[in-house]
Amino acid sequence: MSAEQWIVGVDIGGTNLVVGLVPAAGGEPRGLRIRATAAERGPEAVVTDIVRMARESVRETGEEMGGAPLDVVGLGAGCPGPIDRAAGVVIESPNLQWREFPLRDRIEALVDWPVTVDNDANCATYGEWWQGAGRGVSSLVGVTIGTGIGGGYILDGRLVHGASDGAGEVGHTTVNVSGRRCACGNDGCLEAYASGPAIANRAREGLAAGGDSLLTRLVDGELSRITAATVYEAVVSGDPYATEVLTEAAKFLGAGIANLVNILNPEAVVIMGGVTRAGEHLFVPLKAEVRRRAFRALVEACRILPARLPETAGVVGAAGILAAHLSGDPSTT
Amino acid sequence: MSAEQWIVGVDIGGTNLVVGLVPAAGGEPRGLRIRATAAERGPEAVVTDIVRMARESVRETGEEMGGAPLDVVGLGAGCPGPIDRAAGVVIESPNLQWREFPLRDRIEALVDWPVTVDNDANCATYGEWWQGAGRGVSSLVGVTIGTGIGGGYILDGRLVHGASDGAGEVGHTTVNVSGRRCACGNDGCLEAYASGPAIANRAREGLAAGGDSLLTRLVDGELSRITAATVYEAVVSGDPYATEVLTEAAKFLGAGIANLVNILNPEAVVIMGGVTRAGEHLFVPLKAEVRRRAFRALVEACRILPARLPETAGVVGAAGILAAHLSGDPSTT
Repeated sequence: MSAEQWIVGVDIGGTNLVVGLVPAAGGEPRGLRIRATAAERGPEAVVTDIVRMARESVRETGEEMGGAPLDVVGLGAGCPGPIDRAAGVVIESPNLQWREFPLRDRIEALVDWPVTVDNDANCATYGEWWQGAGRGVSSLVGVTIGTGIGGGYILDGRLVHGASDGAGEVGHTTVNVSGRRCACGNDGCLEAYASGPAIANRAREGLAAGGDSLLTRLVDGELSRITAATVYEAVVSGDPYATEVLTEAAKFLGAGIANLVNILNPEAVVIMGGVTRAGEHLFVPLKAEVRRRAFRALVEACRILPARLPETAGVVGAAGILAAHLSGDPSTT
Repeated sequence: MSAEQWIVGVDIGGTNLVVGLVPAAGGEPRGLRIRATAAERGPEAVVTDIVRMARESVRETGEEMGGAPLDVVGLGAGCPGPIDRAAGVVIESPNLQWREFPLRDRIEALVDWPVTVDNDANCATYGEWWQGAGRGVSSLVGVTIGTGIGGGYILDGRLVHGASDGAGEVGHTTVNVSGRRCACGNDGCLEAYASGPAIANRAREGLAAGGDSLLTRLVDGELSRITAATVYEAVVSGDPYATEVLTEAAKFLGAGIANLVNILNPEAVVIMGGVTRAGEHLFVPLKAEVRRRAFRALVEACRILPARLPETAGVVGAAGILAAHLSGDPSTT
């Protein structure tokens, strides 16, 4: 694809809506626009925001590039929840309160570009593979750690979507058969131990029973205000209790990732989400657990990497999927 | 490939060596030869056996077909242990006591056919996909349950080998982080709960503590003689204790398979090995556990099936991989 072509990337998060313009040949997004996702106003309002932000992004980038009209070849969007990609429909997105919403057709009705829609974890994984930590590898698993734990799997440079677009539910793999109840109803899911809310809960529970931690001071004694971000902040400041909480989560993450390594033997695993702010406090115990649990030859063949596009992987990946679609990649139809 | 072409399929097991002639266009193997694997005489003796059995199989099948010389286009072999497929080398096979053995070159030195070598679980999975329970699906996971638990993954009709030919180590996925120690050194591997030896051990342990079971009578009171096959026999005869032991293993298998379903969203999972003799006594609790643990949409998209080629999947699959190799499938080079 020519270096002068551009793609609009859209990342529809439960909290923020991010839009940017990505060079079709790859590169950093330009004209980034971020605003709160107006989920409470319904999906049509979000579509209106997307199209307005896309036009602003195109106009701003065009002005920066000298004023000539830009050649925009498409719009790729990422969205939480199960997606019917062929139909471009968001089947269900609890965070957004959308059901059976024809996102692709609604956007295409307002713009002249072709539109693709994919799952947010797939977009972030694709972004890290195309332009981020996983550049140049042929097989990669992305693990996103946030409110939930999601995943994406790229093989031979293509996303693996599975038989019904549902592959990558890494957070709901069982690592502890009789363990903690997960929100999905299952026992012992990885997500029940290592998602942001699970980490925050664990930290609060321990402090409710007494004990001293920087965490308590960071929230002025109001334990209910502790979030995963507070825990990462305390870890980076050297707080032993917060470090203990994070280390426990890292071990569970390591067990879940060891399973991915033993099943798929990927070249790389990229860890995405706020938890990567904890840096080596996360990666040292996580990698030790993977080494302990997965076969040595498979561990040696696999690099475990922090994300390199923490703010923009979703936008870049959504645009990259549109680019692959225009190039005829059958996994992006 | 023409219906008149044939491929020699070879399944090198820790116990038995099986050789047969498979139509290149697919079909049942002819001229089957089975003998004990002469592992104690070293790998060269096994190669000699393979080539002799292959020639016998070709001669016998040729006579059955009317006496004209057969058009044999290659030989595909399956072997336990990590394999370097590009080099055709068995890196290490503890069951056979082979290390760094150039299996492909040694066979090719004695025959006029091209030879491919792949892992035994991959061959069995490919056989079930090509000619068995998984015919016609585009994505399939095969799980072999025997002395160990192995696996294979087929996506878009091609085996996924991973970055270093090591994908498919389903038996060594953690389902119980602080659980039973596995022979691999890890805690809580699926294999520690649901392999043949794990099932037999569990049955022996329970009876050593007292209790009545058909199992005791099947081995004339010598509990050390209980194998997984004895357990399956007792289950089929309606023994409640053996059924309880199998049901427990089936639940762990269900957890491990639910993980595969949630990660890969395959169209089918095929269960292979002696344990399938237990029929519904295995599949009912196994499927219930998968339904309990995996997402409903992914469970509904996935059929869980017993193997249809219990004796010959390895031979058929090894031949099928050679056929795919001749057709230019890059995953079989």
